[in-house]
Amino acid sequence: MSGGQIALGPGKVDLLESIDQEGSISGAARQNQISYRRAWDMVDTMNRCFKKPLVESATGGKGGGGAKLTLLGKKVIAIYREMENKATQATQGEWNALKNHLK
Amino acid sequence: MSGGQIALGPGKVDLLESIDQEGSISGAARQNQISYRRAWDMVDTMNRCFKKPLVESATGGKGGGGAKLTLLGKKVIAIYREMENKATQATQGEWNALKNHLK
Repeated sequence: MSGGQIALGPGKVDLLESIDQEGSISGAARQNQISYRRAWDMVDTMNRCFKKPLVESATGGKGGGGAKLTLLGKKVIAIYREMENKATQATQGEWNALKNHLK
Repeated sequence: MSGGQIALGPGKVDLLESIDQEGSISGAARQNQISYRRAWDMVDTMNRCFKKPLVESATGGKGGGGAKLTLLGKKVIAIYREMENKATQATQGEWNALKNHLK
C-alpha cells in the first residue's frame, strides 16, 4: 500500500508482463480480459506509487502509441515472481495440510 | 479453489476469527463491515468446499441462533496464519527490495 492505493498485486504484475509481451496497454488489457480503462488505471496507480515509473507510454507516432516497461518495471516483475516462488516453497507443508481437508 | 469457488482467503479467515470471537455470523459480519448476506455466503462456501464444516450454526433456541467454529474451523485458521507467517518471513528480502522502490 502507498497512500491508500494498492501499488502492486497479482493482477498488476500479470498486466506488466502482458505489456512487456504486447507492447501496448490495449493489447495487455485484451490479454488479461479487462477494459482498457481499468488497465490504464492500474498502470497509473503503479507509476504513481513507485519512485520511478514502471511503464512508459509512447503517445502518437506511427501506429499511435504503445507502451513498454522501464528497467524498474522489469525488476519489479522479477522481485514479485521471486516472492511468489519463495512463499509457495515456504508454505508447502501448510498448503498440503489444508488440501487434505478440502473436498 | 474447489469447484470454481474460492474455499479460503484472507477475508474468509478474518471472518472465521470474528465468528469465534462474536459467537454469531451477524456479529462477525458487523465486525468485518460486510453484510450479513455476504458473510453467510462466505461461510456457506467454506462449509461446502471443505470435507467437514468449519462453522456450525445453532438456529433457534434462546437468543435465536448463533454460530461457532468446529474443531476443523479452528485448525484451518491456525494453518492459514502459519502460512502467512512463513510466507512473510520467507519473502522479507524481496519485500524490502520492493519497498525501496516505493514512494
